[in-house]
Amino acid sequence: MTATHPEDMLASVLTAPRTVELRRVPVPPVGPRQVLVRVEAVGVCGSDTHFYETGRIGDIVVHGDVVLGHESAGTIVAVGSDVSADRIGTRVSVEPQTVCRRCEYCKRGDYHLCRAVEFYGAWPCDGSFAEYEVIDDDFAHRLPDGVSFEQGALAEPVSVAVHAVRRSGITASSRVFITGAGPIGVLNAQVARAFGATEVVISDPVAGRREHALAHGATAAIDPADVDPADYQERFDVYIDASGNAAAIVSAIPTLRPGGTAVLVGMGADRLELPIAMIQHREITLTGTFRYVNTWPTALDLIATGTVSVDSLITGRYGLQDAGEALMKAKTDPTAIKTIVVPALTAR
Amino acid sequence: MTATHPEDMLASVLTAPRTVELRRVPVPPVGPRQVLVRVEAVGVCGSDTHFYETGRIGDIVVHGDVVLGHESAGTIVAVGSDVSADRIGTRVSVEPQTVCRRCEYCKRGDYHLCRAVEFYGAWPCDGSFAEYEVIDDDFAHRLPDGVSFEQGALAEPVSVAVHAVRRSGITASSRVFITGAGPIGVLNAQVARAFGATEVVISDPVAGRREHALAHGATAAIDPADVDPADYQERFDVYIDASGNAAAIVSAIPTLRPGGTAVLVGMGADRLELPIAMIQHREITLTGTFRYVNTWPTALDLIATGTVSVDSLITGRYGLQDAGEALMKAKTDPTAIKTIVVPALTAR
Amino acid sequence: MTATHPEDMLASVLTAPRTVELRRVPVPPVGPRQVLVRVEAVGVCGSDTHFYETGRIGDIVVHGDVVLGHESAGTIVAVGSDVSADRIGTRVSVEPQTVCRRCEYCKRGDYHLCRAVEFYGAWPCDGSFAEYEVIDDDFAHRLPDGVSFEQGALAEPVSVAVHAVRRSGITASSRVFITGAGPIGVLNAQVARAFGATEVVISDPVAGRREHALAHGATAAIDPADVDPADYQERFDVYIDASGNAAAIVSAIPTLRPGGTAVLVGMGADRLELPIAMIQHREITLTGTFRYVNTWPTALDLIATGTVSVDSLITGRYGLQDAGEALMKAKTDPTAIKTIVVPALTAR
Amino acid sequence: MTATHPEDMLASVLTAPRTVELRRVPVPPVGPRQVLVRVEAVGVCGSDTHFYETGRIGDIVVHGDVVLGHESAGTIVAVGSDVSADRIGTRVSVEPQTVCRRCEYCKRGDYHLCRAVEFYGAWPCDGSFAEYEVIDDDFAHRLPDGVSFEQGALAEPVSVAVHAVRRSGITASSRVFITGAGPIGVLNAQVARAFGATEVVISDPVAGRREHALAHGATAAIDPADVDPADYQERFDVYIDASGNAAAIVSAIPTLRPGGTAVLVGMGADRLELPIAMIQHREITLTGTFRYVNTWPTALDLIATGTVSVDSLITGRYGLQDAGEALMKAKTDPTAIKTIVVPALTAR
Repeated sequence: MTATHPEDMLASVLTAPRTVELRRVPVPPVGPRQVLVRVEAVGVCGSDTHFYETGRIGDIVVHGDVVLGHESAGTIVAVGSDVSADRIGTRVSVEPQTVCRRCEYCKRGDYHLCRAVEFYGAWPCDGSFAEYEVIDDDFAHRLPDGVSFEQGALAEPVSVAVHAVRRSGITASSRVFITGAGPIGVLNAQVARAFGATEVVISDPVAGRREHALAHGATAAIDPADVDPADYQERFDVYIDASGNAAAIVSAIPTLRPGGTAVLVGMGADRLELPIAMIQHREITLTGTFRYVNTWPTALDLIATGTVSVDSLITGRYGLQDAGEALMKAKTDPTAIKTIVVPALTAR
Repeated sequence: MTATHPEDMLASVLTAPRTVELRRVPVPPVGPRQVLVRVEAVGVCGSDTHFYETGRIGDIVVHGDVVLGHESAGTIVAVGSDVSADRIGTRVSVEPQTVCRRCEYCKRGDYHLCRAVEFYGAWPCDGSFAEYEVIDDDFAHRLPDGVSFEQGALAEPVSVAVHAVRRSGITASSRVFITGAGPIGVLNAQVARAFGATEVVISDPVAGRREHALAHGATAAIDPADVDPADYQERFDVYIDASGNAAAIVSAIPTLRPGGTAVLVGMGADRLELPIAMIQHREITLTGTFRYVNTWPTALDLIATGTVSVDSLITGRYGLQDAGEALMKAKTDPTAIKTIVVPALTAR
Repeated sequence: MTATHPEDMLASVLTAPRTVELRRVPVPPVGPRQVLVRVEAVGVCGSDTHFYETGRIGDIVVHGDVVLGHESAGTIVAVGSDVSADRIGTRVSVEPQTVCRRCEYCKRGDYHLCRAVEFYGAWPCDGSFAEYEVIDDDFAHRLPDGVSFEQGALAEPVSVAVHAVRRSGITASSRVFITGAGPIGVLNAQVARAFGATEVVISDPVAGRREHALAHGATAAIDPADVDPADYQERFDVYIDASGNAAAIVSAIPTLRPGGTAVLVGMGADRLELPIAMIQHREITLTGTFRYVNTWPTALDLIATGTVSVDSLITGRYGLQDAGEALMKAKTDPTAIKTIVVPALTAR
Repeated sequence: MTATHPEDMLASVLTAPRTVELRRVPVPPVGPRQVLVRVEAVGVCGSDTHFYETGRIGDIVVHGDVVLGHESAGTIVAVGSDVSADRIGTRVSVEPQTVCRRCEYCKRGDYHLCRAVEFYGAWPCDGSFAEYEVIDDDFAHRLPDGVSFEQGALAEPVSVAVHAVRRSGITASSRVFITGAGPIGVLNAQVARAFGATEVVISDPVAGRREHALAHGATAAIDPADVDPADYQERFDVYIDASGNAAAIVSAIPTLRPGGTAVLVGMGADRLELPIAMIQHREITLTGTFRYVNTWPTALDLIATGTVSVDSLITGRYGLQDAGEALMKAKTDPTAIKTIVVPALTAR
């Protein structure tokens, strides 16, 4: 069932905080219902950068070597024994997780909450900064015609936004407030529009990010330093945080109308002091998101139809040998938004 | 509380099937929580035409003189004792019904199902083919800046579509099939897109209607005479009928995927033979719509933001003295889609 | 339209913190769509006690004389001009609020969120500790046969529980955790069972309250001092707080399974520090309740069918002259749960 | 991983219409994630009887030998290579289907709509009238303590009812109408009560069935020959058909209030003429059910807590050699409701 199944490959391995090494490692084995993907593009996520810098995110601690990266697309080059060989050659976007498929969460459509989930690029599960990766057959989502590998890689952050917007209840004519105009904030703005929102106000202290958001989904962009919160009191149906910033979240709650919904996507501190009496009096619904579930077909369709644009997010491309620079670029260069690792650019 | 409260007015009165007379009639009294609206534009609906031709729709029989018309917009010229005079001069779209506001349906958000509902232009409740009309204060919805009276009048058929699309569950990336490319079909196509549908296939035997639909919301338009139903077997998430045609409905059910939803908007026969075993096996949800509820703010917002375009529907304007011609135009002229009665054009 | 419309009546008036006076005051006027109710029983709520002791609840400050009480039932003795006289003599439970019926909240079925809501027994709106009260016709809910006035009065706290349980999503086979075994906690336990919950664990530090809860809805009752939270980690589908106690709420969040729902009914501090990372990772939905909406028919039905028992809550009855004692009884007597003011018991 | 893995077993094989033979057949192989169950009790379903009599149900035609039976419980006696041996000895109820776990339906929580579903006892997939059967590990649901094998077998028809009631939206205080008081009708009545319905009216022409229903969930039982439909006009929130009878369904639609829901569980003709204008005017939602999904934990919990009683349904027990008689009993004996095949009673 294998067109090409190389024995080893180059991978960018995180060996210690702020240290990635380009190494030759074994290509992982392909299970019966899995496929082997030649990686063509991998986006760098803020969580990759956080792992790279500190070796941990909350309770998840890197205890050994790990390959980072979980926003990837590529081409199927080999298939497991129970997968049709017709899939070889298919261009795919990778949904970077494996789940048990048998627990109550998996069976009721919440497989992202499966207690046995393994997520790519989170130690001990290797990720996509490599020449090849293995994924369950059905989590290798075929790229629609006309969708590039880079766009396919960014179906992952689009999925984050699709999941958040679904949980928020945004629909036609919704008014939405978003804090944080990084990649996730801007994608939430675009996806909110795709679900029908007609007003999307985004807040970010960085002027360049506000400009980018205004050009991609937001109907208004504000500097939190300039705004009188009273102007937005009870204005919005939905609030989405894409900043993880406690002050931003607390100041945003009063902008929700009674019965409104707050969805916290950005990761911040473990604990947060909230205006609970207001949440009760206004019957605000507050929740968070954990990755995504059943989002890929929608994310790829929104990209393929041009409803959501991801190209403008990309501000740099690097080979595997420069993964460290790719990981830090968004921190060191204020104009950088999203960098892409392209294994084919790897110096050999 | 009255800027202008004329004593009588011109109205186009249906006195017998196919007979409307321009008469001078009393201006209706304004209740404490009502407003008097000078009518500026009224759309002609297929149900108006049906009443005009036959004097009945199903069990609703015209037993006396009645003013037809229920798609209207105008300017508030007087207010009742419990309404702020500040509203005088406001340009409004009229939601053409009164409800009891006290029954279980009204209080749980289904006021359109109120058993005491009175709908405009349905005998014995007069409608909008007149110089003035009276409406409850909160059912006179302010026109957003930039929305014309004609657009405001067509917020009514847009509301029909908003209600149908809400009941259908259409969301981002939905695939939708619509039968009937008249005004309601085309508006459903546009509203489906506004809620996020990325594929909207519309079916109509008339080529001109298909072309119009393709230019306004539909991603494909098919002639039912040409199509092999097998091409669409289990393809769509949602099916909306805007034709009232039994054969169209029956042939559309198999195009729904398991778990899909069929919403019947068009009025047809009282009884319909349905493929019930398929509905059961695929767990298809089938329902219909009765007008609309809580749709005006969304409808006006979709028009104001350009998300839904209604201008292209308008194919003629008539004074009150020509209401009869306006009522029949869509039947006598295959290129006519939606005619508008404009009281200011009335010959005096 | 009036069988009996007395000019004045006895009322128990809060004139200063901890001071209620029995006074003769005018009977309030009856609007066209209102009814006059002779009060037969009024339950004492913790919020009444709080107003009595401190003159305020949060931002709501008593600035003048007010009649407390909002859990009442009685007999219609007069009706407004637009209400059928047939209603005179009807035994009713009073839903103690008036709303505008015209705003977006009222019209979409969320009338409790109406910004013009006036709630009984909250200054400046007088309540039910009086011989008579006036209420909108449709908010005077007919008592089913066999339901007593005292049971009808307690339809109000049952409504609080119905609203909370509806918002929680409890259904057949749900597992539920409740903190606080006062009247609201116990009624939530019973109502949770009425919606199908098969496991209802309630927590309260007071042994007598735990015993009462066990006899009325709870399947287990625990002392928070004795429990190892690890025993309940991720056990429950729903958590309802009926204590307003910050420590109780914070310790309860980890008992929710991924995807679970927390509903905060009890009023506590304005701000609360929550384990927000856990809420995000588990996609917990957190919300609060503000009174109730569209609950009376269900509450009265649950009482009439014996599904919910309220009789055991009643631990004392007082005339209007003893309203002060009734208000403090639950604080001064640990065995007291719910006291009732019965105007007919008033010493004259 | 095998405590006991016999090579062959007795099975009751349908070889032609009205012909079942007791044969010795191979025990099916156990896949890595499957378990082998020694069958202890199997309920006879109306669909088994229909296959037995006619060799088909709708489009599903028996083209070869098949073992009928899909309501079973038993004991795990062997496990596949990827299942913990700790499960051996566990008493289980069998959810009689296998699904792909990878398609869009499986992953979004609608695995019953999986196009690759294989259902037990429906040719070519053998069922449970045998000494042993094999089932996916997670579809072998542990029996709670105190639940017998016969009760565990009847978790299957209880699941049918749980699925129907979930789709109906029944909740506390719902008023429900059910046509057909066979096992499925009576279980729907009980499950409707478990979800909070306070009024459940059941209709059946057979007096004995009405009496049984009244003793098990129904609050009223009516003979359709005696009833004036006007008595129930717009009375119910939900209507569930458990008869498959076209006349019963058509006459029941008018008993639904506006906004009500009709769920068709019983299988009848392929096509049905419905009062579609009424469905539209009242915005009735009509759907059907296809088996069940994610129902077993709830069904077993309702049985274990005594919320739903299945014992009274059982009216006879047979060994495998008498499967033919068991299959026809409910048709030949009007007092028979549900017969059980007990492999241990098989004459050897």
